[in-house]
Amino acid sequence: MERIGYYNGEIAPIEELKVPFLDRVTFYGDGVYDATMSRDGVMLYIDDHLDRFFNSMRIMRFEPNFTREELQAELQKVVDMADARDNFVYWQVTRGTAPRRHEFPDCPPNLWIMVFPMPYADLSKTVDAVSFEDKRFSYCNVKTLNLLPNVLAAQNAADHGGQEAVFVRDGYVTESAHSNIHILKDGVLITHPADEHILPGIARKHMIAMCGELGIPVEERLYTLEELMDADEIIISASSTFGIRVAHVDGQPVGGKDPVTYNRLRAALETEFEEYIASHAR
Amino acid sequence: MERIGYYNGEIAPIEELKVPFLDRVTFYGDGVYDATMSRDGVMLYIDDHLDRFFNSMRIMRFEPNFTREELQAELQKVVDMADARDNFVYWQVTRGTAPRRHEFPDCPPNLWIMVFPMPYADLSKTVDAVSFEDKRFSYCNVKTLNLLPNVLAAQNAADHGGQEAVFVRDGYVTESAHSNIHILKDGVLITHPADEHILPGIARKHMIAMCGELGIPVEERLYTLEELMDADEIIISASSTFGIRVAHVDGQPVGGKDPVTYNRLRAALETEFEEYIASHAR
Repeated sequence: MERIGYYNGEIAPIEELKVPFLDRVTFYGDGVYDATMSRDGVMLYIDDHLDRFFNSMRIMRFEPNFTREELQAELQKVVDMADARDNFVYWQVTRGTAPRRHEFPDCPPNLWIMVFPMPYADLSKTVDAVSFEDKRFSYCNVKTLNLLPNVLAAQNAADHGGQEAVFVRDGYVTESAHSNIHILKDGVLITHPADEHILPGIARKHMIAMCGELGIPVEERLYTLEELMDADEIIISASSTFGIRVAHVDGQPVGGKDPVTYNRLRAALETEFEEYIASHAR
Repeated sequence: MERIGYYNGEIAPIEELKVPFLDRVTFYGDGVYDATMSRDGVMLYIDDHLDRFFNSMRIMRFEPNFTREELQAELQKVVDMADARDNFVYWQVTRGTAPRRHEFPDCPPNLWIMVFPMPYADLSKTVDAVSFEDKRFSYCNVKTLNLLPNVLAAQNAADHGGQEAVFVRDGYVTESAHSNIHILKDGVLITHPADEHILPGIARKHMIAMCGELGIPVEERLYTLEELMDADEIIISASSTFGIRVAHVDGQPVGGKDPVTYNRLRAALETEFEEYIASHAR
C-alpha cells in the first residue's frame, strides 16, 4: 500500500479511513503524537521516539492500554506494508471516544498510525524562514495535537515565500513551526534550552551529541532574533532534516559564513544515519 | 432524535456518525467553534454567538464557504430535529480534509454541528473550584479546538472534588476551564479585561450590560487569587450557567457575603433569558 492509515487496528488506504465523530480529538485536540522516518523498513531512532512519546503521554495523563513493545510491533506492522523505500511514520493517541465533556472519560484511548512516502531532505539545499510571534502555550515540551499556532506560523511563512517559521518569544528565538533551530557563531553551536517553550527534538539531541564527538562547543541558552540574523550559520533540525541551513530570514540573507563547521557536522550526522539503518537492517 | 450529529450536511445519531481520518482536526486541532443553548427551538443569543464565531474564523484565517444566514439555517434545521425542550447547540469548522501538512490546504472547510439535551444550570446551587496554573497560549480570545490545557484543568478540579477550575496566570485570575469568572467586592463587579488571555463570553457580556442597567459598577481589571479568596461573591458565567456562585476554592469556603447584590443580578439575568425566549418563540 502507498498511503496507509490505521485506527485501533483497522487498516485502510488513508483517504478511505473514517473515525468516530466523538473521538476526543474532535473537540479538544486531546492527544499526543510522535513521528519518525523509515528506510527499508527500519524506523530511525525509534527508541528515542518511543521514549519521548511515553513521556508525552505521562505529562498529559494518558493511560495507554498497550505496552511499548506492543506499540512498536503495531508500527512495524504498518511500516512493513508500505511500498516506498523512505516513509514518514506518524502515530498518536487520543483520549477515547465519548460525549463532549472536559473531564477524562472512562474509556480506553484510541491509537492512530499513518505511514506514507516521504523523501529525506536534500541537505545540500537551503530553506528560507519567516519570523512569527510565539504566542504558544507553555507545554511546548510535549508533542500535543494543539498545533493551531504552528499552522498559522507555517502559513505565514508560505505567504512570504518561506518554507519555515522562526518563533520569537519576548525577543528570543524559540524554535520553528516543525523543527528546532540552532545557530553557529565563532565555532559554537547555540540552541534554546530544552524547557517548556520548545520540543526536545530527537534530531536536536543527536546534533548536540555529535557536536560533543566532534569537539564543537554547545551552549544551550536563550538567543535573540538579532543574534540569529548575525550568526555564522543557521541550522534547523527535524526527523526528516537532520540539519539544513537557512539562507534567508524575513527576506534578508543570513548565515553561510562557516561552511567548514557546518559541513563537518552535517557529514557526521549523515554517516550516523547510514550506520543506524545498516546496523538495524531487517 | 435525541443526540444529533451533523458533518457537512450528513445527519445521524451522533454516536453513529463517522468523519474522515484526514480532517485537519486530527493533527492540529485546526478549527474554531461556538456553542449556545436552546429552549423550545429558540437558540439563545444566537446573534452574539454568530458574531463571535465569524470573528474566531477571521482571526484564525478560516474562509467559510457559507454565509451567516446559511449557517444559522443549518443550525436551526438540526435544532428543530431535537426531541428535548432544552438542548446544547454546538458547531465548529475545521480547515478541510487533506494530507498532513501545516500550511493551509486548498479545499473547503468542514462544518460540524451537534445538538443534544442539556438542562440549564440550577442557579440556586453552588459549585466548588480548584486553582490551576494558566499555561495556555495567547489566543484565548478565540474559541479554538486547542483545549488540552482546559481538559487538564477540568480533570484536576474533578480530582479534588470540584466542578470548575480557576486558571491563575502570574498570580492573576484569568478564567475558568469552561466559564468566565468574576468577583463582587464592596458592591462592585470585578472581571478580567477581555484581552488575549480570556474568552469574551456572551454570558459575561450580558452580565456586564445588566450591571449597567442595575447600577452595579463594573471594573474590568486584573485581580489576584488573594482578591478572589477574599471576595464577597465569586460568580462564574457560561452559556448554560448565566451566573452561578462558587462556594469553595481549593477547599476553602469563599463568597456568600453579598447575597443581595448577587440575587438582584441573577434575577435580572434570568428575566432577560425568559424574555428573549418568549420574544423569539417559533
